[in-house]
Amino acid sequence: MTAVRPEAAEPAPIPSPSGSGSASGPAQEAGPLAGLLVIDLTRVLAGPFATMIMADLGARVIKVEHPATGDDSRRYGPFAPDGRSMYFARVNRGKQSLAVDLKKNPEQVAALADRADVLVENFRPGVMDRLGLGPAALRARNPRLVYASVSGYGATGPRANEPAYDAVIQARSGLMSVTGEPDGPPVKSGASVSDLSAGVYTFGAVMAALVGRGIHGRGTHVDIAMFDATVSFLEGNALAWLADRTVPHRIGSHHPNIAPFGAFSAADGQIVVCVGNDSLFQAFAAALGAPELARRPEFAENGARSANRVLLTAVIEELLAADTCAGWLARLEAAKVPCAPVNDIGQAMTDAQTEARRMRITAGGLELPGQVVKMAGYPDPQVRPAAPELDEHGDAIRAEFGL
Amino acid sequence: MTAVRPEAAEPAPIPSPSGSGSASGPAQEAGPLAGLLVIDLTRVLAGPFATMIMADLGARVIKVEHPATGDDSRRYGPFAPDGRSMYFARVNRGKQSLAVDLKKNPEQVAALADRADVLVENFRPGVMDRLGLGPAALRARNPRLVYASVSGYGATGPRANEPAYDAVIQARSGLMSVTGEPDGPPVKSGASVSDLSAGVYTFGAVMAALVGRGIHGRGTHVDIAMFDATVSFLEGNALAWLADRTVPHRIGSHHPNIAPFGAFSAADGQIVVCVGNDSLFQAFAAALGAPELARRPEFAENGARSANRVLLTAVIEELLAADTCAGWLARLEAAKVPCAPVNDIGQAMTDAQTEARRMRITAGGLELPGQVVKMAGYPDPQVRPAAPELDEHGDAIRAEFGL
Repeated sequence: MTAVRPEAAEPAPIPSPSGSGSASGPAQEAGPLAGLLVIDLTRVLAGPFATMIMADLGARVIKVEHPATGDDSRRYGPFAPDGRSMYFARVNRGKQSLAVDLKKNPEQVAALADRADVLVENFRPGVMDRLGLGPAALRARNPRLVYASVSGYGATGPRANEPAYDAVIQARSGLMSVTGEPDGPPVKSGASVSDLSAGVYTFGAVMAALVGRGIHGRGTHVDIAMFDATVSFLEGNALAWLADRTVPHRIGSHHPNIAPFGAFSAADGQIVVCVGNDSLFQAFAAALGAPELARRPEFAENGARSANRVLLTAVIEELLAADTCAGWLARLEAAKVPCAPVNDIGQAMTDAQTEARRMRITAGGLELPGQVVKMAGYPDPQVRPAAPELDEHGDAIRAEFGL
Repeated sequence: MTAVRPEAAEPAPIPSPSGSGSASGPAQEAGPLAGLLVIDLTRVLAGPFATMIMADLGARVIKVEHPATGDDSRRYGPFAPDGRSMYFARVNRGKQSLAVDLKKNPEQVAALADRADVLVENFRPGVMDRLGLGPAALRARNPRLVYASVSGYGATGPRANEPAYDAVIQARSGLMSVTGEPDGPPVKSGASVSDLSAGVYTFGAVMAALVGRGIHGRGTHVDIAMFDATVSFLEGNALAWLADRTVPHRIGSHHPNIAPFGAFSAADGQIVVCVGNDSLFQAFAAALGAPELARRPEFAENGARSANRVLLTAVIEELLAADTCAGWLARLEAAKVPCAPVNDIGQAMTDAQTEARRMRITAGGLELPGQVVKMAGYPDPQVRPAAPELDEHGDAIRAEFGL
């Protein structure tokens, strides 16, 4: 049985993509998704994050916005010194903007979808159906369309119509209950994990649906829920409950059954140390200048170290108090003990690795986080196109599509 | 200019995929990725999580493991009552296992890669090159191969060779510094955000590379870093620093500039309430039985509520103390105020939405989290194939590929 390829065996020439160098928008190098046309009806975060990745990879993304107000996130902080929303600029860079009143002119979106590869929306379930723009209606007109919906709870199930924010989903999914100090209140992850994990899943699911279209010859309706995405991120905590109905609790920065494995205070701040096995603990103890620790029966093996975690932490922090984070990290790195400073955001954004990986770029003159998806042979530019003004590309797109 | 499709214009018939119903493994319904062949050299978490999604969507995934030990995570807890690792079972369900000693028989992997669509590995940068199995070597033999590497810091940059665990990356990326109570220590997110976000990015990137192969006719080397993935999840915190060099700090469960927006104590636990604007605050105050709150000048507008957050929280929690979480949630839901209980993991895993979305399934007789990627017209089974025993499919695969 020969392997079935997910698309034509003959390589296509690199196209003159509709997504760049056409009627409007800055010319771009050809990314892996050059030539894909994405209609983007998303607002705020999870949806725009997904289509941002597609735009970063060379797809042409037409962002459809309300003529009067545009995407709400145009008015969300933080703001750049010139008043532009960093929030909007970040997740909408490289897109084109077309103003459409969906209630008055839904047929304009239908016409775009007829020629598109992908449509992404994050309205509450049912809204698009009521506009005549639901997946059944648009896929009947264009069976090759990949229609993606991203919402708080998904398009099905008893909570489908409930309102959801990232914090609501972090709470209901159980994630908040396992984040925080053991004796403190539950806290949110400092990142919008529910929104952003759903965004990355939506990107991946749309790409998988396009691969599936190459195999099966048809589009589909992709239905991604922030709730599902967050449940999938519970991982070890979910597995503990599924194994024997143990309810996991908060453990601060430490590992449930490996020690030492978490954050420890040095003279001027905190460092994270991850000692995954007994021989690494010998190296760690030697680097601390206290090799005898690894011979004490209460610390010699991981099981004992975990059981004596409070004592172990006190002993370690007493030793760490003698020098700075930088001093200890240098010694631990030399001893090949996995470790890191607990960087603040400024330290993280200026880390040498952040620069080397182009994880800090500019778009439209604003500094923004870079693109995670790195692929050999495709551009990963340091300067990317700006987010659009409201309806910036409207005239050109209306002429091109006969709207 | 016509839109360029990312694969052949003619729909292919649904194939008899190499990934199911062939020499070995349980028969599967045809998922969107049916017919894709993925060689999986990953261990532990980020990599296996990516290839798990591919297997869940119908790809044939051949997991290559060391003949003596297999994937280390076969010995990681939590364990099912019968002793199987839930950890291993979760991220390796539906895969086939082939034992290969990479140092003795690297040519076996090269032979598999010659016929594969995708290869995924998460060794430290350079290890695969030293085995003669690096991206340059294997892509020279099979230019259509999508070769994906996932690592802590990526294949490039000054930290490329540093050891990394999820906790190390959460610390260095800055994520830990913004997670926790304002007056408490930094904590880890309760989820392995760095590992799992990298896993989902790897899934999406591989799919995008396959779409790109359809457009450009060639494979590529995908290079995903846990560090980059986590930096991309900082989002609002990163933007605050990029905007004007403000260093964001920990804010517990609350929102930096919206109030009330976070967790509040009721009589028997905590609920999350997200009041995004002033009219919603009026509805919230009425549901609390205290409509006059919305008329007090210190609470009438969001800016004032944020400035008076401590007072506002005290006032809200005094009112909430009069009833249980369930009582308040019923009232708030009726008032359309976004809210949720701070569920523990057991409550989350048994939520009606978790069941309805098939986010709790079984595989090989073990209860596990389900698949996030839902697509119309493709299976999302409640019962999925088990994770393999070490070399379970070895004889059949060696015969099929002539190894």
